[in-house]
Amino acid sequence: MAFNTLPALLLLPHAGPAAIPLAMLVVFISAKFMAELAERIGQPGIVGEIFAGVLVGPSVLGWLAPNEFLSALSDLGAMFLLFRVGLEVKSSELMKVGGTATLVACSGVAVPFVMGTGIMLAWGANTKEAIFVGASMVATSVGITAQVLSSKGLLHEISSKIILAAAVIDDVLGLLVLAVVSSLTHGQFDIFSLAMTAVAAVAFTVIVAKWGTQTVGRIVPHVDRRLKVAEARFVMALGLLFGLALLAVFTGIAAIVGAFLAGLAMGESTGPRERDLAQGVSELLVPFFLAGIGLRVDLSAFAHPSTAILAIVILAAAVVSKFIGCGLAAAGLGKADALRIGVGMIPRGEVGMVVAQIGLGFGILTQSSYGVVVFMSVATTIVAPPLIKIVYKNLLLPGEPVGEEVVRLC
Amino acid sequence: MAFNTLPALLLLPHAGPAAIPLAMLVVFISAKFMAELAERIGQPGIVGEIFAGVLVGPSVLGWLAPNEFLSALSDLGAMFLLFRVGLEVKSSELMKVGGTATLVACSGVAVPFVMGTGIMLAWGANTKEAIFVGASMVATSVGITAQVLSSKGLLHEISSKIILAAAVIDDVLGLLVLAVVSSLTHGQFDIFSLAMTAVAAVAFTVIVAKWGTQTVGRIVPHVDRRLKVAEARFVMALGLLFGLALLAVFTGIAAIVGAFLAGLAMGESTGPRERDLAQGVSELLVPFFLAGIGLRVDLSAFAHPSTAILAIVILAAAVVSKFIGCGLAAAGLGKADALRIGVGMIPRGEVGMVVAQIGLGFGILTQSSYGVVVFMSVATTIVAPPLIKIVYKNLLLPGEPVGEEVVRLC
Repeated sequence: MAFNTLPALLLLPHAGPAAIPLAMLVVFISAKFMAELAERIGQPGIVGEIFAGVLVGPSVLGWLAPNEFLSALSDLGAMFLLFRVGLEVKSSELMKVGGTATLVACSGVAVPFVMGTGIMLAWGANTKEAIFVGASMVATSVGITAQVLSSKGLLHEISSKIILAAAVIDDVLGLLVLAVVSSLTHGQFDIFSLAMTAVAAVAFTVIVAKWGTQTVGRIVPHVDRRLKVAEARFVMALGLLFGLALLAVFTGIAAIVGAFLAGLAMGESTGPRERDLAQGVSELLVPFFLAGIGLRVDLSAFAHPSTAILAIVILAAAVVSKFIGCGLAAAGLGKADALRIGVGMIPRGEVGMVVAQIGLGFGILTQSSYGVVVFMSVATTIVAPPLIKIVYKNLLLPGEPVGEEVVRLC
Repeated sequence: MAFNTLPALLLLPHAGPAAIPLAMLVVFISAKFMAELAERIGQPGIVGEIFAGVLVGPSVLGWLAPNEFLSALSDLGAMFLLFRVGLEVKSSELMKVGGTATLVACSGVAVPFVMGTGIMLAWGANTKEAIFVGASMVATSVGITAQVLSSKGLLHEISSKIILAAAVIDDVLGLLVLAVVSSLTHGQFDIFSLAMTAVAAVAFTVIVAKWGTQTVGRIVPHVDRRLKVAEARFVMALGLLFGLALLAVFTGIAAIVGAFLAGLAMGESTGPRERDLAQGVSELLVPFFLAGIGLRVDLSAFAHPSTAILAIVILAAAVVSKFIGCGLAAAGLGKADALRIGVGMIPRGEVGMVVAQIGLGFGILTQSSYGVVVFMSVATTIVAPPLIKIVYKNLLLPGEPVGEEVVRLC
């Protein structure tokens, strides 16, 4: 293919008035093209969209590099994805699985942390570096799993609800692990500010999840009747989405958790109209989230064979430790659901990269261990969707065995 | 109000993970809040959204400054706005009014250019500066008018179709005026490259407008049946949108003209589903386009009384010259439609600002005449919507006089 004969000017972030349509066209079309290819070989489209980012990114074709605009669209895409997932589930149902979800989250944080730290120590890294790599393996990024489950109509399975609830708790735990690790390795350990962080994050999450839906359900119809502005409910939904994403960031947790909580809260106040409008935004922006993950792949981690081996070992540990940690904690639900939960919690995504960036900034992580963490974060998002498809296989055609269909037709 | 006690940190483009949700929240909510206020005092909501940008921008509260992310969202918003307008009109109908539209466009380019240059010369500016200010007054930005007409369901009026067609022609003429002016004032006048620019721009526009709809109408259903990817028609629509926007920029005309042509071409290949999805994106992004205009207001042009007077004179000339130039050219349609066309072509928007930036870059415009042009560009977008509302008033309630309503109720 003559693809890489396109001008190298595409890499320039400031290609004048062409920059925006060019970036939009390259990312969107390559993501959809690869999604189509992936579907045709029986893989989830989402894997194709992530690979599209790898393909057009610096590692392969070099048409685009991650820049401020693309990563902003990627962040927005993740927010809209989680917002729409939140719209589809009920907070009361998530509350019901809260006990199991907490267990899954705690175990799914502890096992990867211990395993990651242990491997790094065995590899000869110093204690601080080992602890930081362990910490970067802790937080599940629920976007990938949510997208697969949502596109297959599986969000109402018990395992899906536990995954969503556990991922929210996991994010709060991840925040605390990062805070403890940062303060320990950076020399300032302030138990009071740590406790305040924990209280703020937990209080925000619990309050919105528990009372958000009913509060919004009372206010929205009331305000809706009085507004003259067009599509008032959609406007309110977007306001809540950005507002809670911002509050989430202020309390220290991820913007996407705030977006998910906004979706939960709006769940009973939106009709098909608002959902269609939100879906339009998702259809545009989610490919930027997915391809954005792939764009960040840096294959320079593989320049040295020893780093390449470490990267693969850490990736295997990340997959296995999350799978065992979450799966065992959910064993009480039976083998099938435990498997689903173990697999659904595997993707790490951008949270691990943020931890690694902080470690790099502190001078604790070397460039090569940073590369290893970024590789692990992206690779877990690529291996998870096909695995999710396998463990959810027998739920994909619920109540429609061929025999019954024939009976009904007769 | 205690609004301006918010931390000045909001101005920082890199406020960490809070930057994106913060910018989204501030722009979107202020735009919708001001739109609501505007509607309540009987003004078009669009004026409120532009004012919201002035309010939160550097001139008043200083919460946000234009940055790469916001102007990218603004560009995307303008593209989706014009794309949706294109979906709603038929290219064959635009072709029918092509003769009048060409006359309107030419006269609407000539009169403002001559009047602007004349005023600047009378003011004592040198010839080059005067010509550049005149050139910056040439190009209509159709986004504002299109939004008003579309939100009131007036896109199918003969005057609306002439405005849309004339605005496209006007953009091509504006490109040529800029090319001639740049090469004349910059010392290199190359008639051959100028002719090539003209041919490329005209050929692109005419080919897409004339054969786009039928070509797309043949290809899309065919491809749609074979694609496995979800929402395939919407994906194709977005691909065409970004692709033609990019081609438009490559041929030298504005990205929004390409987006409009993409909408025209997709017009008969999209159903209500695709239109709803596109509207979701518009609802999110168009406020960024409108508020983005307001964000660029720089009241420093008013620091010196003489500049302030010049700014008002130029604004008045911009309004009057477009009104007369376009209105007279459309006089054959009768007084009402001539008035509508004259008023609908008034907004200049970002095209004038681009010309002014080039002039500033060449050292031809002074900082104060640059400020005057930016003020003129923004102010024409603010004065136009209320005027449009007035001249279209008797079309707003077609066939529903109160008397008839009473009869029907009995």
